[in-house]
Amino acid sequence: MNFYDGLTFPAAGVIPFEHHRAHTPLYYGIQFNTSGTLRVRINRGREHTLTGPVCFITHPGAFFEYSLAPGERHDFTFFCFAGPRVQEYLRSGLLDLTPMPAAISREHKFVETLRELLRQRELGNYPESVNLLESLLIQLRRQTQISAFLYQTPRLQELVHELRAHPERDWDFEKEAGRLSISTQHFRRIFRRHTGNSPQHYLIQLRLAQAANRLAHSEKPIGMIAAEVGFEDVFYFSHLFRKYYGIPPKKYREEFFV
Amino acid sequence: MNFYDGLTFPAAGVIPFEHHRAHTPLYYGIQFNTSGTLRVRINRGREHTLTGPVCFITHPGAFFEYSLAPGERHDFTFFCFAGPRVQEYLRSGLLDLTPMPAAISREHKFVETLRELLRQRELGNYPESVNLLESLLIQLRRQTQISAFLYQTPRLQELVHELRAHPERDWDFEKEAGRLSISTQHFRRIFRRHTGNSPQHYLIQLRLAQAANRLAHSEKPIGMIAAEVGFEDVFYFSHLFRKYYGIPPKKYREEFFV
Repeated sequence: MNFYDGLTFPAAGVIPFEHHRAHTPLYYGIQFNTSGTLRVRINRGREHTLTGPVCFITHPGAFFEYSLAPGERHDFTFFCFAGPRVQEYLRSGLLDLTPMPAAISREHKFVETLRELLRQRELGNYPESVNLLESLLIQLRRQTQISAFLYQTPRLQELVHELRAHPERDWDFEKEAGRLSISTQHFRRIFRRHTGNSPQHYLIQLRLAQAANRLAHSEKPIGMIAAEVGFEDVFYFSHLFRKYYGIPPKKYREEFFV
Repeated sequence: MNFYDGLTFPAAGVIPFEHHRAHTPLYYGIQFNTSGTLRVRINRGREHTLTGPVCFITHPGAFFEYSLAPGERHDFTFFCFAGPRVQEYLRSGLLDLTPMPAAISREHKFVETLRELLRQRELGNYPESVNLLESLLIQLRRQTQISAFLYQTPRLQELVHELRAHPERDWDFEKEAGRLSISTQHFRRIFRRHTGNSPQHYLIQLRLAQAANRLAHSEKPIGMIAAEVGFEDVFYFSHLFRKYYGIPPKKYREEFFV
């Protein structure tokens, strides 16, 4: 099995009560502090103070100092990784070294994944370890995205919820940007950062997914389903459906009708 | 984020009580049957009968027939995937289409991952979905490996346990193959299939990991640690350590000593 090649896990562990640490790391590292107050400085810059479960990434080539308030209970878990696969993480944006330490809001899931990662590394189960590390990176990235996103435009998340609930509506994203008091260009940028897609593309995928679901769970004619999810033109609908699902709507119904 | 590009998830769901199904699939699919007895035929070949939680992979280009015994309770969950990333799975062996349906022994974990995958797909969380699908493929592959492995050589697993417990011993893998009554070549093949590594390489990694652990958690001299984990020559040990961890043992201790 070589799908997951290109990583090593040179060190990992739990350090209790380490009050101060300063180093230029040898490897990339996930640093997670369970509770209490953590102070972090990178390259002798501004000091960040974070309370509660908090995570940050250390990496070679930068100077890190972190300290924990004495007297409080701390569990500090670290997990180091290295190898050519890290370059892929960086290139693709799965791993982003720019953001500051992130408070972990979905703590239970993060801690569970981290613990399982330490366990699988210990057992020498390499593919499982890589898969879990990548899961942590996704969680961390979401966390950072959500923070940045909530900070920038508190109402964008509401909009995405609304979009998911009613993809059939005649959405006008210029108008939506206006309602959020931002430029269309900025709207597109933060929308894409949050969902991974442009608003238009995201909307089309939602509509097609809803149509696919109705094809499989109802006996309504295809034209009616197309109209219900927001496509006026059934031929355009069929064209897009085929592009995304590889088959025409009729064939999809034959295959997946329940 | 494009680390996970190259997949689509055209269909997924839970089908209760479907007694018989025959098709040439349009996509790759994970098919999971919660309980009861399942009969599967591929390309009109031999019928396989499996009881209990069981999983198999459907794929384009083959003809599948499966039926469930009537009267019993069944939950049948399927998850379809397609796209260029599947070719990477096949090329690397993460996805193997040759093995027969596999009985799922670590059922709880498998079901939990599958449920979370359906949930994340529903939410439109693409990177999470890919990560979970890959976790399922790893689990499935382990399952198949373990079955094949237990069937072939019941005592190899014991050997691997022994190896992990005492990597410092003077292991002779030709002798071990002899004790299992198989050729050295066959031994190497099944060992690699199970662990992902040749016996020699696996042993070296175990020894180095144990040494790294002692460097971080004891004050013993490096030469003593090298000898304890099974290296007679401390220079050879340092050379290998440096190759795997990127730094000499002394520097590793400075960095990770607790």
